[in-house]
Amino acid sequence: MKDFALKGDILYSKSLNKVSQHENSYLVCVDGKSEGVYKKLPAKYKGIKVYDYSGYLIIPGLVDMHLHAPQYIFVGLHMDLKLLDWLNTYTFPAEAKYKNLSFAKKAYDIFVHDLTLSSTTRFSMFATIHNEATLYLMNELEKTGFKGYVGKVNMDRNSPKYLIETTNKSVKNTLEWLDACEDFKNIKPIITPRFIPTCSDKLMKELSKIMIDKNLPVQSHLSENRSEIEWVKELMPKVKNYEEGYNKYGMLGTTTKSIMAHYVWPDEKGIELMKNGNVWVAHSPASNRNLSSGMAPIGRYLREGIKVGLATDVAGGSYLSMFRAIEDTITTSKVRNCLFDSEYYNVTIEQALYLATLGGGEFFGKVGSFDKGYEFDAIVLNERDIPTVLMSELNLLERFERYIYRSHTNVYAKFIAGKKIV
Amino acid sequence: MKDFALKGDILYSKSLNKVSQHENSYLVCVDGKSEGVYKKLPAKYKGIKVYDYSGYLIIPGLVDMHLHAPQYIFVGLHMDLKLLDWLNTYTFPAEAKYKNLSFAKKAYDIFVHDLTLSSTTRFSMFATIHNEATLYLMNELEKTGFKGYVGKVNMDRNSPKYLIETTNKSVKNTLEWLDACEDFKNIKPIITPRFIPTCSDKLMKELSKIMIDKNLPVQSHLSENRSEIEWVKELMPKVKNYEEGYNKYGMLGTTTKSIMAHYVWPDEKGIELMKNGNVWVAHSPASNRNLSSGMAPIGRYLREGIKVGLATDVAGGSYLSMFRAIEDTITTSKVRNCLFDSEYYNVTIEQALYLATLGGGEFFGKVGSFDKGYEFDAIVLNERDIPTVLMSELNLLERFERYIYRSHTNVYAKFIAGKKIV
Repeated sequence: MKDFALKGDILYSKSLNKVSQHENSYLVCVDGKSEGVYKKLPAKYKGIKVYDYSGYLIIPGLVDMHLHAPQYIFVGLHMDLKLLDWLNTYTFPAEAKYKNLSFAKKAYDIFVHDLTLSSTTRFSMFATIHNEATLYLMNELEKTGFKGYVGKVNMDRNSPKYLIETTNKSVKNTLEWLDACEDFKNIKPIITPRFIPTCSDKLMKELSKIMIDKNLPVQSHLSENRSEIEWVKELMPKVKNYEEGYNKYGMLGTTTKSIMAHYVWPDEKGIELMKNGNVWVAHSPASNRNLSSGMAPIGRYLREGIKVGLATDVAGGSYLSMFRAIEDTITTSKVRNCLFDSEYYNVTIEQALYLATLGGGEFFGKVGSFDKGYEFDAIVLNERDIPTVLMSELNLLERFERYIYRSHTNVYAKFIAGKKIV
Repeated sequence: MKDFALKGDILYSKSLNKVSQHENSYLVCVDGKSEGVYKKLPAKYKGIKVYDYSGYLIIPGLVDMHLHAPQYIFVGLHMDLKLLDWLNTYTFPAEAKYKNLSFAKKAYDIFVHDLTLSSTTRFSMFATIHNEATLYLMNELEKTGFKGYVGKVNMDRNSPKYLIETTNKSVKNTLEWLDACEDFKNIKPIITPRFIPTCSDKLMKELSKIMIDKNLPVQSHLSENRSEIEWVKELMPKVKNYEEGYNKYGMLGTTTKSIMAHYVWPDEKGIELMKNGNVWVAHSPASNRNLSSGMAPIGRYLREGIKVGLATDVAGGSYLSMFRAIEDTITTSKVRNCLFDSEYYNVTIEQALYLATLGGGEFFGKVGSFDKGYEFDAIVLNERDIPTVLMSELNLLERFERYIYRSHTNVYAKFIAGKKIV
């Protein structure tokens, strides 16, 4: 891989409340990693290729912590029901189609095409229960140059007969799938029990064993919707709270890394289990609006030291654009604040940029920053269609803010671990 | 004006809960008005020009009931404060710039350019206190072919010294402005007291007189933010509620037509004043999120027979796109429902289409429908970048829904009162 530099207006997060801004500067990539930002290209990099994005905004690639690739076929549709009815009416029938590999290929090709053009560089996504289709998706993502996690979904109860596995089959399929995944270099498997309602105790125990034996991360859904939480109480009457329902299998960061999608309604005791620094909340504000789930208290999580990343949650979420996830994170925090909380809970534009880059990126290793040693994930934003009357007065963070609110979907250029994708 | 027809997939609202869908049909325009929709072009229209938009979705133009043209210069910025601080810190200084006509020309040219490409066909907007700049804006809108209302803003108290008029000057300027407006055919003046906090009792009385004498509609802001409402109580200690604060001047539809922006926090007695059928709530869900104002109970308003239209409220609102206003109306209603209300309050996609067309359109006369006799406002939507795996199974309303959620900003073609604008 050849070394190179990007020239442009460079913005990235240093920490939750602090950004680093470098107008008209150079961002150097050596061996797929950032060598840092320079006002003038140092002599030792003389002769490397320079991509000239002068006047363009360059930020770290955005990290989508939770989305369902198979659901992209109905993105922007079917959001008139709440979670459990929505799953049974729209989502399960749609996911069942992926048993048919030729359907899956057609659908996943479109999904990977659109994800490629988007601002997303890293992700953790759900596929379906089907091994063949899941491996096809992983292969397409790998070929494109993405890095991230994909999970073959497990579900052995409370699911329609056309989209359910026996416990034994679910375990066997998982092991076979994991064997096949060894061919991939950049797309990695993640253990994926759909959520407690669709996974028996026996299945959870088996998945936990595999997770620990093979040192694999885990992803699932937690406390998204109030009816779901009531149901989980009925399903696990002896377990104190939904959080403990995962924790008892080592799935809240006590054994390997974990992502829990949504976490809209924390339990006052269960929330303590979320503070060990090895479990991430995947905040999906659009999905939580669309499915009438609620508004997750992200300001509180940040204050209490819970790890948070942002997510589109396609297709409960209605877009693939992480720019919109940033916007919706900010506006949801404001509405929450206005109705329930104190000023303290507003998520600022600085914080939202952090959450969409370093916040989620940390799950993937050294990802989400341009500091030296971080993997070189970068996107280039074209602001040409933005009103420019006051443009000269804006700093880079303000330009980023304005860009976010302009409903943009795609990027001008994109690099993942030093490879140019767009 | 020559007669013509549009050919394509035609969708429009018949009433709040009912849409009319016509695949591969003709929409005929005669003398700037709709002659209705036909599966086959009737013989009597033989030879008229047919714009062939086969496969494209055609819907009525969208009606933006409330936006601030001068604030477009900072759209997508400066939303870290709540209403009153936001006005003083960002908005008033920005509006003051429009005293300078050359600045105003530059800014309004960009605004009109972007509004032209947008889905908006009708509007009621605020300008600033400045006559010259306001007339320039109106002239540019008129030249483009828009129809709608523009208001020179009045404010004579509680405003910074660089953006305030004496009461007499405010009245005199208003009368001079109204005289100058007589030159316009399609862009009409609307009486525009900014809101009660910035308008003295004397000014309100004078504006009310002018409004009634000249039979002009009126627009203002009502019950947007809780601090604002408290302040109005202090300013008008003898008046029962904020609603009555306007009603006592005949400004809630009892004399002429009225638009009240926001109405996030209705008073349980004052709300009765909003039910006379001649006052519209301009619902601005994005603005109400951005400025931490709250979530207006639109489902309740619809149930109780209050007129509602949708609005972007640029630049408390962060976009010019009425598609986004439709999306945000739906999602705001869901979050409200989930937290406070019953299922009854969800705004459906059918209802949101109605509100964005006929709901607001009625304020402007026969606007917002393709039924015979309505003014011919139509927009054509290009869905080519939408995932198409399931496309053949979608009806027109579902295609519209999916389009809305794809974060679109602009349109493929646009007609206003029979004139092709885009």
